[in-house]
Parts: sequence; C-alpha cells; structure tokens
Amino acid sequence: MKRIFEIDPWLVQSHQLNPNEKRLQESMTAIGNGYMGLRGNFEEGYSGDHLQGTYLGGVWFPDKTVVGWWKNGYPDYFGKAINAPSFIGMALTVNGERVDLATSTYRDFTLTLDLHQGLLTRSFVFEGKQATVRFTFKRFLSNVIKEAALVQLTAESLAGPAELTVAAQLDGNVTNEDSNYDERFWAPQGENAAAGTIQLQTKPNPFGVPQFTVLLKQSLRQGATLLPGTVTTSTGQLTSTVTLPLAPNVPVQLEKDVIVVTSRDVAPEAQAEAAAGLMTQLQGQSFAAQLAAHTALWAKRWAQSDVVIEGDDAAQQGIRFNLAQLFMTYYGDDKRLNVGPKGFTGEKYGGATYWDTEAYVVPMYVAATPPAVTRALLQYRHDQLPGAYHNAQQQGLKGALFPMVTFNGIECHNEWEITFEELHRNAAVAFAIYQYTAYTGDESYVNHDGMEVLVGISRFWADRVHFSKRAGKYMIHGVTGPNEYENNVNNNWYTNTMAAWCLEYTLARLPKADAAIQARLAVSGAEQQQWQDIIDCMYYPEDNKLGIFVQHDTFLDKDLRPASSIPADQRPINQHWSWDRILRSPFIKQADVLQGLYFLNDRFTREQKERNFDFYEPLTVHESSLSASIHAVLAAELGKQDKAVELYQRTARLDLDNYNNDTADGLHITSMTGGWLAIVQGFAGMRYDHDQLRFDPFLPKQWQGYQFRINYRGRVIQVAVGKTVALTLLAGPPLTVMVAGQPQHLEVSAHA
Amino acid sequence: MKRIFEIDPWLVQSHQLNPNEKRLQESMTAIGNGYMGLRGNFEEGYSGDHLQGTYLGGVWFPDKTVVGWWKNGYPDYFGKAINAPSFIGMALTVNGERVDLATSTYRDFTLTLDLHQGLLTRSFVFEGKQATVRFTFKRFLSNVIKEAALVQLTAESLAGPAELTVAAQLDGNVTNEDSNYDERFWAPQGENAAAGTIQLQTKPNPFGVPQFTVLLKQSLRQGATLLPGTVTTSTGQLTSTVTLPLAPNVPVQLEKDVIVVTSRDVAPEAQAEAAAGLMTQLQGQSFAAQLAAHTALWAKRWAQSDVVIEGDDAAQQGIRFNLAQLFMTYYGDDKRLNVGPKGFTGEKYGGATYWDTEAYVVPMYVAATPPAVTRALLQYRHDQLPGAYHNAQQQGLKGALFPMVTFNGIECHNEWEITFEELHRNAAVAFAIYQYTAYTGDESYVNHDGMEVLVGISRFWADRVHFSKRAGKYMIHGVTGPNEYENNVNNNWYTNTMAAWCLEYTLARLPKADAAIQARLAVSGAEQQQWQDIIDCMYYPEDNKLGIFVQHDTFLDKDLRPASSIPADQRPINQHWSWDRILRSPFIKQADVLQGLYFLNDRFTREQKERNFDFYEPLTVHESSLSASIHAVLAAELGKQDKAVELYQRTARLDLDNYNNDTADGLHITSMTGGWLAIVQGFAGMRYDHDQLRFDPFLPKQWQGYQFRINYRGRVIQVAVGKTVALTLLAGPPLTVMVAGQPQHLEVSAHA
Repeated sequence: MKRIFEIDPWLVQSHQLNPNEKRLQESMTAIGNGYMGLRGNFEEGYSGDHLQGTYLGGVWFPDKTVVGWWKNGYPDYFGKAINAPSFIGMALTVNGERVDLATSTYRDFTLTLDLHQGLLTRSFVFEGKQATVRFTFKRFLSNVIKEAALVQLTAESLAGPAELTVAAQLDGNVTNEDSNYDERFWAPQGENAAAGTIQLQTKPNPFGVPQFTVLLKQSLRQGATLLPGTVTTSTGQLTSTVTLPLAPNVPVQLEKDVIVVTSRDVAPEAQAEAAAGLMTQLQGQSFAAQLAAHTALWAKRWAQSDVVIEGDDAAQQGIRFNLAQLFMTYYGDDKRLNVGPKGFTGEKYGGATYWDTEAYVVPMYVAATPPAVTRALLQYRHDQLPGAYHNAQQQGLKGALFPMVTFNGIECHNEWEITFEELHRNAAVAFAIYQYTAYTGDESYVNHDGMEVLVGISRFWADRVHFSKRAGKYMIHGVTGPNEYENNVNNNWYTNTMAAWCLEYTLARLPKADAAIQARLAVSGAEQQQWQDIIDCMYYPEDNKLGIFVQHDTFLDKDLRPASSIPADQRPINQHWSWDRILRSPFIKQADVLQGLYFLNDRFTREQKERNFDFYEPLTVHESSLSASIHAVLAAELGKQDKAVELYQRTARLDLDNYNNDTADGLHITSMTGGWLAIVQGFAGMRYDHDQLRFDPFLPKQWQGYQFRINYRGRVIQVAVGKTVALTLLAGPPLTVMVAGQPQHLEVSAHA
Repeated sequence: MKRIFEIDPWLVQSHQLNPNEKRLQESMTAIGNGYMGLRGNFEEGYSGDHLQGTYLGGVWFPDKTVVGWWKNGYPDYFGKAINAPSFIGMALTVNGERVDLATSTYRDFTLTLDLHQGLLTRSFVFEGKQATVRFTFKRFLSNVIKEAALVQLTAESLAGPAELTVAAQLDGNVTNEDSNYDERFWAPQGENAAAGTIQLQTKPNPFGVPQFTVLLKQSLRQGATLLPGTVTTSTGQLTSTVTLPLAPNVPVQLEKDVIVVTSRDVAPEAQAEAAAGLMTQLQGQSFAAQLAAHTALWAKRWAQSDVVIEGDDAAQQGIRFNLAQLFMTYYGDDKRLNVGPKGFTGEKYGGATYWDTEAYVVPMYVAATPPAVTRALLQYRHDQLPGAYHNAQQQGLKGALFPMVTFNGIECHNEWEITFEELHRNAAVAFAIYQYTAYTGDESYVNHDGMEVLVGISRFWADRVHFSKRAGKYMIHGVTGPNEYENNVNNNWYTNTMAAWCLEYTLARLPKADAAIQARLAVSGAEQQQWQDIIDCMYYPEDNKLGIFVQHDTFLDKDLRPASSIPADQRPINQHWSWDRILRSPFIKQADVLQGLYFLNDRFTREQKERNFDFYEPLTVHESSLSASIHAVLAAELGKQDKAVELYQRTARLDLDNYNNDTADGLHITSMTGGWLAIVQGFAGMRYDHDQLRFDPFLPKQWQGYQFRINYRGRVIQVAVGKTVALTLLAGPPLTVMVAGQPQHLEVSAHA
C-alpha cells in the first residue's frame, strides 16, 4: 500500500512530486471523456522517468504475435490500443531557461484532480536563475465536444519581469512501451503549418484490419484573440511558439485548444475541414464557458449516481474516484466502444474489451447510470456477433464464442489457455442480458438483438460439451475458470453451471422473442430438446462430505492449505512464485465457485453459500482486482460484516492506495465498480431478481452512515443507511420495495 | 506420402528436379559430419523457392521470446541454431550466360546421395544459347578434418568451345526463415581478400549467452595448382572468380576447399591462422585422397552397424538412409554437442537438444555404435547439471530439472505447458543411464558422474510430488505426458511411474557409487527414507474394470472413440483440427502409457501389455515421428506381427516418403532410430535386462530375411533372420545368448 494523494471527499490532490512515483501519479491523474484520454503527463515535458500515454477510443493496432509453436485456432494477432500522438505539449522557457520539474528548482507544487468534473489542475513556482514564475495548468477533455482537449496556462512572475516562451506542440513521434521489437505504430501523413495540423496513419498490417488515420489540430488563444505564433514542423510534429512578456505580479493566461478527429468518424480527406469546424465551435466559447458546460453534464451524472459516506473520508474519496474514472472511461456515447480494463490510463490490457465488462461493470452500470448506457454495452456484443461466430469456427465449433480480448469481436489475445479455454466469458455475456432485463424490466433487447446473442451462445455451449459415456453426463473439459491460477481444468463447476444456465435462460426466453427473430434463428424442436437434455444431464462436481461445489474435477486432490499459511514476504504470490507453483497450488486468484453463487444468488440456500464461502474464501489470495468486491457482497449477505468491510477496503481504494503495487501501469478501471457493488449489493443488500427490488442493509461500524442513488425502472431512488434506513423516491412512479424483508411503499414526496 | 527419390539399397537418387519439391529434395540430400552440415542447396545458386540452410554444431542465438503475459519461471529466451554463412557458392556463367536451374534450359539431371560415405553428387547438361555443357558437382564434409568442406566441379563442353566463369563465394549475409521480426543474427567482422576469409560474429544478446565468432576460408585448386582468381569483397561476403576455357569434350575440373572454424574451438584472433593451417592440411591431399580417407571411416561404421534387408529394397534403403543421416548428425566426436531433432537439415526445433536423445537415440546408439558414442551423450547431460539445477530453481524447486529444449543446459523453450510440465524428460535422462549401464555393463558412469545426475533428478521429483491428504498418496499434478495432445494433466501414469522408478534406481545404485561421490552428494538417511516413502505411496491411476493403467486422472471421462473413426480428410488432425479440439479429444499423439511399458518392459506381464496396447493403440494417431517405433516394438512382442510391420513402415521411410508432409522443413533425425528399434527390438525381439542378452525373432512375411550387427560388451554380433535364425559372434569373447527362450553359446568361429 502506498498513498501518495491526500484524503479529500471530492479531490485527489498532492503537494509533492516524487520522481520515483511519477508513473503512479500519472495513472491517478489520468482523465478521459469516453472518446479519448491521457495520463497525467506534464504539458511542459518531463525529462525524468515517466510513461507517456494518450489513447483514442477504438484506435488500435493488430500486432504480430509470437508463440512457441503455432497451432490451429490461435489468433493471428495481438490487438493493442496504441499510444496516440501527444497533444498537450507546451514546453516552457523562462528567460531562455527551460522549465523541467525533473531538473529545475521549484516550490509550492500542487496537483489536483477535481472529481466533480474531471478537471486536472497543476501549479508550481519555478525558481529560475533570473526569474520566479508561478505556473498553473488546467486541462480537461470536453464532454460536450468529445474531440476537444482544452489546456489553460496561467503564468505570473513573482519577482521582476520575465520573458516566457511557450512552444505548443502536437507530437506524433510516439511509441508504446510494450511493443515487442520497438516497433513504431504510426506513419506520419503530413503536417500543415498554416492549419496547425498533423495527420498520421497507423502502419499497414497483414491481417486485413483497417488502418486508422487521425488528424490533430491545435490553436492558441488569449481570451478571444488567436495567437498563431511561429509555426515549425518536422515529420510527425508541429510546434507553435509564442513569446509572452511577464510583468511582475500580473498573471498572463494562454489557452491551448486541441481537436482530435479519427477515421472512425471522419474520412481522412475530410478530417482537416471537420477539425476546423470543431475548432470554430470550440473557440466560439471561452475556456470558462466550455468548462461550465462540461461540468453541467457531470453534475447530472453525480445527481443520479453519487455515493455519500459519512465518517470515513478515505472511503468517500475512494468511491467517488472510482465512479469518476469509470464515467471518464465510458458513459455509453459510442456503441462501438467498451470499457478497457485500464481505460485511457495505461498500455496494459491494450485498451481492449474483456469479460470484465459483463461480469463487473454491467452489475453497477445497470443501476448507477441511465439504462441506455448499459444497453449500449449489450449492443456492442450484438454488433460483434460475426466475430463471435468466427471465433467459434476457429475452434471448429458451432455457435458464437465471444472473445476474451477484442476490439472488433475477433479474439486477439495469444495464450491458448485463455483464448480457447476461459470460456465462461461466453456465459457472462448472456448473464448481462439477464441482468439488464431483470433490473430495467426492458425486454426490447432480449426479445430482439439479445436473442440472437443468446442463441449464438447456446449453440456454442451445446457443441462444446461432450457426453461422457462412463459417467452418463455431459461434461466440459479443458477450460480455465475465473480462477486464472489454474489452467485447462475439467468440469469447472462455475463454467458448467453457467453454461447450463445459458441454455436454460435461452430456452425460457425464446418463445417470448420477436416472431421474426424466432423465425430467423430457427431453433428446431430437436435442438431445444438437445439443450434440455444437456441442462438435465450436466455434470456438476460436488463433495457431499464437505457439502461444497468442487471447483473442478481434481481440485480436492491438491495440497489444501489456507492462504494465511503463505509467508507475508511471498505475497502476492504472482510476483514471488513460479507459474508452475501457482498453478499447482490450492490458492485461488478470484471468486470462482463463489462467482456462480454471486450471479445465481437466488438459486442457492444460505447454507450452501455459507459452506462454500467458508471453504473457498480462506483459499483465496484476491490477487485479481476483481476478487474482493464479489466476496464482499457474499460476506455481507452471510452476515460476515467485518469480512465484508475488510474486502470493501481492498477494492474501494485499490488504486488510490496502490494496493497491488501495479497502479503505475495504469488504473484498474473495470474493477472500480467493486466499491459500489460492495456498498450497494453488499452493505445495502440490493437484489432485484423476480421483478422485486429488495434491500437488506447494515451499517459498517466504522461509518456513521452512507447513502447512494440508483436508477430503477424510470425512477431515482435514494437509499440512506445510518442508524436507521431511509429510502426516498426522488423521481418516478410509486414503487413497493422490500427492506429487510418488509414491504415499503415509496412515492415522490410532495415536499421534494 | 510422396516419394521423389528412386529405390536403391545404397543410393538416394533422383533424375528429376521438380521446383515444387525443391525444399523436400534439399532436406533429403542434406549432409553433415557432426561438426557442421547443410541442406542440399545448389552450389551455383537457385533463384526459385528453396530453403538456404547451413548449420554449425553448437553455434546458436538466444532469441527474444514473446508470450502473452510473462510469468515467473518462464525462460528468458528461445534458443535457435542459426543459419550459418553459406560456403558452397560457385556461381556459373557460360559465355556470359548465368546457369540457374530455376530458369535455364537443362537435361539429364541426376542427384545422388551415396549412403556409403555421405557424398552428394549432382550432374546436369546445361543447354545455353551458345554452348552445351555437362556439369557435375561432388561434395562432402570431411570426417577426417571436421572443419573441411570439399566441392569438386567437373565441366565438359559437349558441343563447341565455351568460356566458363566460376564465382566461388563465402556469404555471410544469411537469414533465418523462422526469425520473429526478420532479424539478422550475424554481424560481419571483416573480409580478407588475400587470405580468402570472412569473419562474422553473432549479434550481442542481453542474456549473458556468449557470442560466437566464425571464420570461413576458401581456396580454389585444379589438381595441385591453386587458383587465386580475382577476389572481390563486400560486407560479409567474399568472391573468387576464375575463368576457364572449355574445349569440346574435354572435362575440366575445379575444386573448392573450405575451412570453417568457430570460437567454440579457436579464439577469434587465432582463427585466421588456424584456418590457414587446416587448409594446408586439407590441400596436402587431393580431393580423391581426402574422399578415400573419409570413406574409410564410414566403412568402419557400416561394418559395425549395417542392417541388411532381403526382399524389400524400399525397406533396405529406408534403414540405411536413417543410419547414415544419424551418423552424419552425431557420432560422439564432441561431447558439447547432441542430436538435434532435425540435425543439420533445417531450422525447426532450432538444432537444440530434446528428450528425443534419451528416449529414442540412446536405445539404438547403445547397440549400434561403440559405447563411447553413447557415453558422450550421457556426459553431455552431466556437463549441463548446473543448468538443470538452475531450471529447477526457476520453478522454485529443489534438485535438477533437465530442460525440454537446450543448448547449454538452461531451458530455452517458451511454452509453459512444455517447459514447466513435460517433466518426464527428467526421467528419460535417468533411464538412459540405466540403459547404457545395463547394456554395456560399464558401471563407470553410473558410479561417478552419472550418480550426480541421478541424485539431482531424484531430488527434483521428491520436491515436485505433493501429498494428497484426501487420497493418502503422493501425486504429480500439472504435467504434460509424452502425449503432447494433452496438456497440464494430473497424475499422468507414465510420469508418476517413471518418477518413482528414478527414485528407486537412484536408491539402488547409490550404495555402489564411488565413495567420494556419495560423500559429496550427502544423501541423508532421512532423504532416502523420504524417497522410499514416495516410492511406496505413489498414486498410479488404474481402471480395474478395463484392466488398464489410466493415462491420467480424467482420461476415461473423454468421448472415447477409435482413431479409425476420424475421417481420412481430417488426418493428420494436427493440420486440420484446432488445438482445443485436439486437447479435448481422446486421440493420442505418441506412446504414453505404452512408453512406460516399453521402457520398464520386464516389470509388466504380457497380459498387462496386451490390455494396455489393445486399449491405447487404437486411440493413437501416431502424429509424432517418435510414435510408430515404440508401438512396433510392443506389437512385435505381443505377436501382432502385421501391426508391427505396418508401424515399421511408417517409421522407416518417414522422410523418404514424406509421410507426415513436413520433411520439406528438414529431416526427423531423432526419430530415424525408429526403423532400427522396430527391427532389432521389435522383429528380432532384442532385450538385455538382468545382464542377459536375448532375442525372440520373427521374419516379416513381406521379407526374405534381414540381418544386423550390434556391439555388445566388447563383441560384434551378427543376427541373421531368415527361415532360420543365425547368430554369429564376429569379434570378442564367447557369450551365451537366449534365442526364443533357449540358451545359445556363441564363439568367434575359427573360420572367420
């Protein structure tokens, strides 16, 4: 654990710049607007160790992948979101002296991410040889004009006059740290000094993946006055230099406006004109006015989704940081995009879509954002169905296999034990449809596009099982369960359970689907009978003596020992043990059997949940950022309040406290829902199966109270838990909610 | 199956050059001398599709390896034998017209590999615009001067005078086809026109693996006259050009002598002088005299090892081709080298050492070559013990883990399911010690260096097992057995069996070992007791109902179907099925349980062998070149003569008939012992456990007879099987041999 920012309910703020923690600081101060995002790199540049990172949603490259020996069915390429041209550059020179916080003398450093609106502010006093100047940068990526990045620089000489030179740059000469052989992914297409633009294209690839072309345009202004400056270009770069005299104690402001357009939206030849139009729109309003419009949209989000925690500012900061980062990554604006595990904050996981979306993001988004946002996540999968059919075909199987990692629906990760075997993601995609439908009551997806997804998934499972003559049961061999600390196991209980659930849900929903969809899908009676046979004869490993579901066929043969027996200096085991030792160990990375009890919560008795939780949780090392939240929800349900709170703390401030010592690479965006899940589904016990919203709240003893707001079927409901529990319907028609097992009728108060 | 060479008992000959089969032809006409080797590339160059390949024993490069996500314990690099500078180049121009069989007009093409002595001869009549010239190339790599390659060109104008230009070249500008990113592995260090040399060094690497420097020297002569020619150089290249007038019907000869020295033997600064000395030695004798000396050494080998088959020339050619290629790859001259799966014939498998050596090469070499040759293979492992300890430590385990793939003892393959899990190779290394000792009666290895190997291996197994409290047994989880069509299985019967055997053999041999070795190894009584406990309580999966040993824990849950149920157009399955489908299928790549019955042959009853053979062989697709031979031996033992012969045919002409459709990449050198094993251990039923040499021969009904010679404890024994069986002691002291269960006393005949 390393806490480098101060505790504050709404701010992520630091007054220190520790060169050893520059990358960590950059991750934590990343901002995004769903369209693009960037790490907390410094505008003026920084010559010390740092990770330059700017990412454009959906702009990626299919990198060559190398495995030991190629085998049929392996993906052709490894997709990665590439580091995009950097557009924040504003190199500063004071009386000829370059400002560089890695080498310059400075004081009064303050760095602040304001969670209200995703505004990053940084100020410091530069103590040059001949001048002392206070610099303040503010930047945000507009939620109103998604293509726009705005940077405001304020410079004030604190002693004597000074001459400030600002070299504002667009820089396409960027690389990825994770490139295999120091490849460059961008080919410059030209610079236009008069227009202030550079254009670049991703390099060709042999896989038929379209190349992306981006155009970046910058413009400097002071108030309403544009400052063209002296423009120079080199290949892939453009620099506008302006010189500003600084009189003592007179703040001078300079604003850098940037427009970024990509061929995802605008054809390359039309990009210059499109960018010019957007720039005109952007510069039609002042920085302050643009910020106000941007902040107004944020205010709406917070009004629907804020979580308030009384008596624990660290927890308060944690949950708001997570919500802000999630919303900066994805708010449903572009159905072609999804929620990358690191969002726009780092290179790892390549900015691609993982099962995280359905397993961890949807369960929060369905309640914390308007239904259209979650619906867009579902639509994304439907729109990628051709890719999913392709993936199954690659394995010689029928139906649709949604990918473990993807940009376009086609699997682009290159480990067979993941790609071929971590099949349970295919169930999560189906379960998200169930969750959305059950929560919102909106059946329009499941009855149309969603049914195409469900049938594709069911056809996959029906072909992927095999019938064991010896056991007289259907089995699923060769899978990797959610516990990625084992590979290639047989009859993973979670996978078998969820596969059968998929068939069951599809069979149940199919007759209600749109007639035209039913006709097109043409699921014959024989096929339905086959699915029913699989449901009826699926093999589930269980141990009657222990009264548990068994993680997979031979799990109980392991050298079973609790995770507490691992010496502290060997934790996390993934940083200390060989992969062989981890695979053979009994230690579980994240909820596996328990993930099933979490998803299909209403199908198991409390005793079943208790026995399994008590058996598996002690074996669990929670080394996935996705682990603690699910366990917290179950612990809360089972009355293990202390355990629930302990696990909440692991998830809610995972990045703020750098709990897994890897946040320098980027934030764990998709696991940031964990704090919300732990509070809303855990502490407050929210459930919504069988068309009945229910709560069963408790108040962690460390807190004085907490409250949150959710959207539910056209309503906004506020739940406040303190010494008592108060539910308030803020908007929408009346509703009866179960609270601790008792019905409670809610109506909008006349006083509201 | 594709047969492109004619049937002949001693020649591999073709009168056709099919451009579509150039690579296949090149593989089949590769030659080597243990020190170096090369594919059947053409001296004059060939502009059509081909695979340029020259390989120097032990000269390799640690290539960067890329996997999806790095995990602790993964090897740092992927080792590969790199394509070495080409030294055969003799570009031909006739009256200004370039000779290139891809584009020129020619007739009377003949290509012949003479198996007596590894001599490659090629002739053709070039029909140029102005001249018709017959060219004949002969080349061999000397067994007398290992650094020497000799090429003899004969040119004869068949019509009218012609001017022939020969540009003899050394070419260091070579690449590997299998490089990940088109890397070049060689850095030229300089050319010396006067000396006729080029020197190159392998590129630096970040892994601490030493770089290799090689120097190549060429010299042209006509009879005793040296022809310096006109020498030109460019970076990494040197060319000597001579012009020869050709009078009609007067053959003209030109010889190219090459010396290749490497920093494995000679420091870079001393290489020029060393090469000059070797060139003087080489050119001290004519081409014919050098060839005669070389051939004399081959004659000795054949006198000890030839196998004669009467009535089946195809089979005869197959076994001689295999023996010749094996001996060209390895004859024990350099203890630092081993037998790469493709020898010097292709890039695949990187020229590294695999378990093939102990499992397939040693069982033949121990009888077919002098004991020192096999002993050198054992010594190789002992000399790499530090690497084996390193490999175990990488996995967090005690003892020594011999690598799956290596040049220097350190694992250099990059698939965890192989590297971490295919542990049975560690038993094969131990078993080779047993085989050598049991066959030769020479205990000097097992009592000294060999015991260090055995104890290292046993300490590994003792740490790698775990005790399953539930079963009350020791288990080995997470392995890949010899059947590489499954990965990461638990309690592979073969692995468990061989692991326990290692402990047992080590315990049995330990008290007899050299006292100093025992003292140094310090195996305590407690440790021995622990090993005994593992032996006593090892878990072996068995099925009593079927009466078989079970391949691994859940094998019988598979959808068991015979391999004959696979449609013909889907064979081999590794070229038609996805890896996922293969892994989950019941189909077996090569002997797994049966490999154990083969190795520990004397420990199992005939009924056990029969039940297991009858269960597993029908599931086996024999898609490893190593499979058929083991099955042939067992089938012969079980009286399944037709099956044995069928399997023999698959192994004996695997490459000559391109049975697996992959010989274009190179020959399957290590599996070339299979034909010999099938004949000697299979048809002739040779066994040698318990210090008793035994035979139990039968004659395949397709043959009129077969005979072979073996070395046995200082003797040469000839076994001739026709309508009767005749054993002849050709050299050495008298011996009693069991033949078909009856003792037969052998003495060297006075008439001999």
